[in-house]
Amino acid sequence: MMENFIYQRTTELIFGKDQIVLVGEKASAFGRKILLVSYGGAFNENVYYKQVVSSLKAAGLTVYELGEIKPNPDISKVREGIGICREKGIDLVLGVGGGSVIDTCKTIALGYYLQEDPWEIFTSGKMPEQALPIGVVVTLAATGSEMNASAVITNAQTEQKLSFRSQLVVPKFSILDPRLTFTVPKEHTVYGIVDIAAHVYEQYFDQVPDTPIQDRMAESVLQTLIEESDKVIADPQDYGARANIMLASTLGFNGILGIGKATDWASHKIQHELGAIYDIPHGGGLAIIFPNWMKYVCEAGLGKFVQYATRVFKVDPTGKSEKEIALEGIERTRAWFNSMGAPSRLADYSIGEEHLELMAEKATKNGPLGNFKKLYKEDVLAILRMSL
Amino acid sequence: MMENFIYQRTTELIFGKDQIVLVGEKASAFGRKILLVSYGGAFNENVYYKQVVSSLKAAGLTVYELGEIKPNPDISKVREGIGICREKGIDLVLGVGGGSVIDTCKTIALGYYLQEDPWEIFTSGKMPEQALPIGVVVTLAATGSEMNASAVITNAQTEQKLSFRSQLVVPKFSILDPRLTFTVPKEHTVYGIVDIAAHVYEQYFDQVPDTPIQDRMAESVLQTLIEESDKVIADPQDYGARANIMLASTLGFNGILGIGKATDWASHKIQHELGAIYDIPHGGGLAIIFPNWMKYVCEAGLGKFVQYATRVFKVDPTGKSEKEIALEGIERTRAWFNSMGAPSRLADYSIGEEHLELMAEKATKNGPLGNFKKLYKEDVLAILRMSL
Repeated sequence: MMENFIYQRTTELIFGKDQIVLVGEKASAFGRKILLVSYGGAFNENVYYKQVVSSLKAAGLTVYELGEIKPNPDISKVREGIGICREKGIDLVLGVGGGSVIDTCKTIALGYYLQEDPWEIFTSGKMPEQALPIGVVVTLAATGSEMNASAVITNAQTEQKLSFRSQLVVPKFSILDPRLTFTVPKEHTVYGIVDIAAHVYEQYFDQVPDTPIQDRMAESVLQTLIEESDKVIADPQDYGARANIMLASTLGFNGILGIGKATDWASHKIQHELGAIYDIPHGGGLAIIFPNWMKYVCEAGLGKFVQYATRVFKVDPTGKSEKEIALEGIERTRAWFNSMGAPSRLADYSIGEEHLELMAEKATKNGPLGNFKKLYKEDVLAILRMSL
Repeated sequence: MMENFIYQRTTELIFGKDQIVLVGEKASAFGRKILLVSYGGAFNENVYYKQVVSSLKAAGLTVYELGEIKPNPDISKVREGIGICREKGIDLVLGVGGGSVIDTCKTIALGYYLQEDPWEIFTSGKMPEQALPIGVVVTLAATGSEMNASAVITNAQTEQKLSFRSQLVVPKFSILDPRLTFTVPKEHTVYGIVDIAAHVYEQYFDQVPDTPIQDRMAESVLQTLIEESDKVIADPQDYGARANIMLASTLGFNGILGIGKATDWASHKIQHELGAIYDIPHGGGLAIIFPNWMKYVCEAGLGKFVQYATRVFKVDPTGKSEKEIALEGIERTRAWFNSMGAPSRLADYSIGEEHLELMAEKATKNGPLGNFKKLYKEDVLAILRMSL
């Protein structure tokens, strides 16, 4: 039976065409001074970014900008952001971007109230009791960060990529206009889809029995992703496909799929170790790791993998053993990732054996990973070796 | 493609065994004086009600009680509740019960800030700009009122049963312990299941194309309900079944299944007309009306009904026309309701032709009902006649 849980997601989701014009009005509910966090450069020349700025200015707000947020965003930009917030007396941290931008915003918003360096949030678990409010305009469907309590930040100096969770940083509002994702290049669209699927898997594959609604809702997101990925690759400006993928991203990782379950984030943790050393795309790393994680752990709970194979990929179970059905579902997963052009081996990123041991060591230094099957250093190493 | 939407549900869901002990702590976040709304009588002697009262008292809170809330709750109890709130300076309205209790709480909380009589909220749409905070301890899985913005109240004097919606009355917290539903009699358990299914249908059957996640999530709730209804009838103390049905109730009507869709509440409106004149159980009325509504409207969008039949009931489509598949799904719906012991005809409540015309007239007096197919007075009358 399902476990006890407490669930709350207060984010106001503002979804659809032209909703971006509401940003000034929504932001002004939180004060007058806005820190606008984004990618900078050419991105800030696009029409939507300009619309955000004009909407904020039309609402009489003062805008300070923090640009040049990169994939695998670095703690140094967080420090810079906190500096601006303190100097200018910022009322709202507003991100225009994907997970890198949003997670930077979250860490700024929380770190603002911390006397120590914000990296302490990740390393020593120091948590202030409040955070600046956060608003979001989403430009990439991937991390679900727009409606959750998590953030992931990299420290290039220490070669660490770490995460924290705090209800305090759940965005107050998130604006999702699918058209903002029309121009996301194919490869990043695909990495986003893999990232969304990974979040769903990490909530879906658990050992808590009898959670039929959560399981089926997770399958709903996965089946939709599989259908819509073909469409969006065929036509990047297919509004319906972009909308469905964007919604999949938000609902896939706003926590609702994991209520009452013992979720398992081992694959993400392993990917973070990869990402800390090699600056590879997050979704690319996940596409490599996940099918191998599935293969490695599936015997710890074949029933769930059979359910996955038969419901999500309609694998025909006739005359097959549970293990065979499970493996067919896993192969279909890898085939789906490959069909979209996602990598399947670490070699695709020219990553060899050099640091596998170190990554396995770092991934498990606070104890074994995961819940579906506990993974110790040698297990993580085995999964990484399978991924070579 | 899906329509634009804004969605926010701030309720803190506190789910599972023994979570009820948290009520004192949660309530005390809102002040010191609590109006405790419930059924009164024998209900207030049960162990859970007593646990609520002790938890509140242990938290140092002062408790005023409003009892004797009945099914199809009357506006007179709302007036009485508002009176107590004003006299005592209540800080939080806390309901222990099902939809009747929660909806009474919602109307008290909002009506408190209205100078006029609270029935004006329903008839003239007068909406105050604030409401008292509301907390809930759920004892019946049915209405989903614990995480939504709606309330339905009856006015016995005027023979009206009307509803309102306001974000202001979304409960701040809702405690859901499935064990509190162990003692719900079979017939009310069944009515609850029908009510939950009806809420899902009303969001599922719409004419907005390309909403695959919402559709599949709705099917997730329905499939689970069908499976779990057998279990709970066989064993009313099956924790897993009670838990899954309770979660179905909350997620089935917290609005998430209807995002981006043009939902259709015609059947509920027709049932409300029945409930206003005849004091029949809400779920009983819905069990009669819904299959007939489906039959009457299905040709306006056979594709959706085919999807419903094949996905939810696994109707085999081979060699059948769309209409035949749709009708088979509708018959399966009626058969499911009947198998649980729900009524299928108005005659089961000794309701004849006498007031059908009046009900059809009242149901449509503010214009046609619904979106899947617009229903005028003659359409409503036809559905009521099919239900005799």
